[in-house]
Amino acid sequence: MSTSAHPDSNPQGNRLDPWFDAYAERAHNLRASEIRALFSVVSRPEVVSLAGGMPNLKDLPLDRLAESAKRLISTRGAQAMQYGSGQGWEVLRERITEVMSYEGIVGADPDDVVITTGSQQALDLMTELFIDPGDVILLEAPSYVGALGVFRARQADCVHVPMDDEGIIPEALEQVIRDVRASGRTIKMLYTIPNFHNPMGVTLSLERRPLIAEICMREHVLILEDNPYGLLGFHADPLPALKSFSPEGVVYLGSFSKMFAPGFRIGWAYAPHAIRDKLVLASESAILSPSMIGQMAIADYLSDYDWYSQVKAFRAMYAERCEAMLNALEEYMPNCSWTRPEGGFYTWVTLPEGLDAKSMLPRAVRARVAYVSGTAFYYDGQGADHMRLSFCYPTPEQIREGVRRLSTVVNAEKELVDMFGAGFHKHDIDEVGPGVAPAPNAL
Amino acid sequence: MSTSAHPDSNPQGNRLDPWFDAYAERAHNLRASEIRALFSVVSRPEVVSLAGGMPNLKDLPLDRLAESAKRLISTRGAQAMQYGSGQGWEVLRERITEVMSYEGIVGADPDDVVITTGSQQALDLMTELFIDPGDVILLEAPSYVGALGVFRARQADCVHVPMDDEGIIPEALEQVIRDVRASGRTIKMLYTIPNFHNPMGVTLSLERRPLIAEICMREHVLILEDNPYGLLGFHADPLPALKSFSPEGVVYLGSFSKMFAPGFRIGWAYAPHAIRDKLVLASESAILSPSMIGQMAIADYLSDYDWYSQVKAFRAMYAERCEAMLNALEEYMPNCSWTRPEGGFYTWVTLPEGLDAKSMLPRAVRARVAYVSGTAFYYDGQGADHMRLSFCYPTPEQIREGVRRLSTVVNAEKELVDMFGAGFHKHDIDEVGPGVAPAPNAL
Repeated sequence: MSTSAHPDSNPQGNRLDPWFDAYAERAHNLRASEIRALFSVVSRPEVVSLAGGMPNLKDLPLDRLAESAKRLISTRGAQAMQYGSGQGWEVLRERITEVMSYEGIVGADPDDVVITTGSQQALDLMTELFIDPGDVILLEAPSYVGALGVFRARQADCVHVPMDDEGIIPEALEQVIRDVRASGRTIKMLYTIPNFHNPMGVTLSLERRPLIAEICMREHVLILEDNPYGLLGFHADPLPALKSFSPEGVVYLGSFSKMFAPGFRIGWAYAPHAIRDKLVLASESAILSPSMIGQMAIADYLSDYDWYSQVKAFRAMYAERCEAMLNALEEYMPNCSWTRPEGGFYTWVTLPEGLDAKSMLPRAVRARVAYVSGTAFYYDGQGADHMRLSFCYPTPEQIREGVRRLSTVVNAEKELVDMFGAGFHKHDIDEVGPGVAPAPNAL
Repeated sequence: MSTSAHPDSNPQGNRLDPWFDAYAERAHNLRASEIRALFSVVSRPEVVSLAGGMPNLKDLPLDRLAESAKRLISTRGAQAMQYGSGQGWEVLRERITEVMSYEGIVGADPDDVVITTGSQQALDLMTELFIDPGDVILLEAPSYVGALGVFRARQADCVHVPMDDEGIIPEALEQVIRDVRASGRTIKMLYTIPNFHNPMGVTLSLERRPLIAEICMREHVLILEDNPYGLLGFHADPLPALKSFSPEGVVYLGSFSKMFAPGFRIGWAYAPHAIRDKLVLASESAILSPSMIGQMAIADYLSDYDWYSQVKAFRAMYAERCEAMLNALEEYMPNCSWTRPEGGFYTWVTLPEGLDAKSMLPRAVRARVAYVSGTAFYYDGQGADHMRLSFCYPTPEQIREGVRRLSTVVNAEKELVDMFGAGFHKHDIDEVGPGVAPAPNAL
């Protein structure tokens, strides 16, 4: 079902919308992510989804959390059910500095932490604060689809920086900065996911961290360090955050969604003081204050529960799922290559030459397996030769079966390409049909 | 302490901020509300605050809510602690259509409801979607300080429309529309709080509702109807919402913060379908999805509890407090005049001629009572002859004592004005000193 045949489903607005002429210019930059349209199909139980980024919560101590919520509301309800501070509750901000100490950020000042509705809101606020239309944001090639959406909505110009298995390539970063500036454009920030990158699964090496920090400091480019997966390394403690190398040059974004759970929608920014001031004002303008009960429940979890052991349990679970995926890839898809994540949720698969992940997706879904086409993770339409496969949510058995199904589609596609050459396919993603999708699938 | 003497406290940024040159133009429009600077002082227990807009939660069935939260997490934790849909949970959207039926909105489609992080986020998203810098938003004179903050941050040009004890004056609205258009500017929307207005306490009369809806329809001005207090009428059921007169011409904003509690930060927008589409995309970009546990807890409260009886109990409590305030005003401040609210949280006091509510505030706080100066509620610096007094949070006894204290300040001020004429005062609001304030006080 194409959007041109069904103008009602066109998020760009249309002449049936009496307010079509009233939208702000930026509203026309909003679009549903490539992933979204698929999800009414993908969420069917018979489909193995290697597409989503939802954490697996089955090991959470639910009874403990249930008791905590009950106690908070019955004994401290007047506070828990009320508005809170726009910056976030000081007790949770204190706890957050302890969480960040595991990432090499030592002695953080709770006064420079701002609590947000998930770290997505912090990302949105940072973009609001720094981006005038046309300003450039540098970001990894590829990068997080939800960040691309925010940057696009706020009319940023995104420029990708090449990366390899050790993350952003420092020389490439320097070159891109030179090129962008030579073109007369203004660079406002580097957005980066240094740990267990989404979608690539790779990690910025220890050697490169001070180099990236130093280049950005020298070139006066603010770093926006997005670190939702940092604690979820399979075998080793986290590498020190970029923030630890450049306290005044980095705004650090943290999230409880992956190391704990997304249900309370609580994340944070840890920012240089002057930026923190503006983040608080912008957040008050956007939401008044984050959820008090959510903040108190998480502070309680961090104070009274051995949360770091829980993180270790998550690590072991995700490590097992990752291994299941890598083994299945080796067994079933030897004609592809992929990254070998040391943590996080994703691996990045390179298809055999001539295959197109975006046009192949409907056939994969018909074969009851889903992934995200690499094109979702680029600003400029690149990425059709890649797929992001996530191993966070399905069981190891489901992962194995999903990869097996995927291999049948890839192999059939490969045969066609070998026979007829690339570009034989007429189908495109629209034939899967539209669907109202849960946002998390954009993760 | 003035901001010029202490540049660090200047939210506009300064040369000590290494990123001062990098902010977007709009970031310079962010500023702390007038109310905020006072709150470290006002929150001292010896001060009676007639300033804040926090609901009084003491009658909430906390044990019932605690049990509900416990049950939700222990039996449905995998859903409650997970991401949800960007538009909001369909079960709660269904419940919300029932809530809106009490406001005269019958047969609402849950598919056109978008759940947000408080209705403040819906306000922010609507502004994002419709306002290019310099576009005009019409709004009551005076209007909600938190809306003015959003509109300013998004570079809207705000134009006030005169109101009286029956709300917006239709002829005045028509005149303002003509004048603004004659000046070559583009009007994007009318922002209005028809019920128990913040800060004026008045309600748009039944007679005027179809007129306002009709004028805006005819003039193609979208109405943004903000209705947090609608169910809190003291003596009568709510008047029908503007949305009920103009389904395609109104985006309706609702909130659980006042009729229930703010702690979960859940509000909503009910919008024409095409606008709803864009609101969902914008909200996903901003926060991915609203809190699932918060949505489930509220849906549970609306389903299993006699929530409308609870609303009636709130009404009676606020009615008693309002009466305490009006009686105290009559007894202690006969030299002032004020509105007589039929619901909500606020009354709007007009000071004797020559008095300045903004410059008087530090003296009031020294006399251990706080209010909000009328200037906070205007885009253009008007309002110094008014104060907003809120009766929602303090007890009737505290209200009475607060008004008594306030009368001593007003009377002393009046004596000085009578003796020396207006403009004798040298103090200004800054002498109270800066403070990190809870955002709710901006309500």
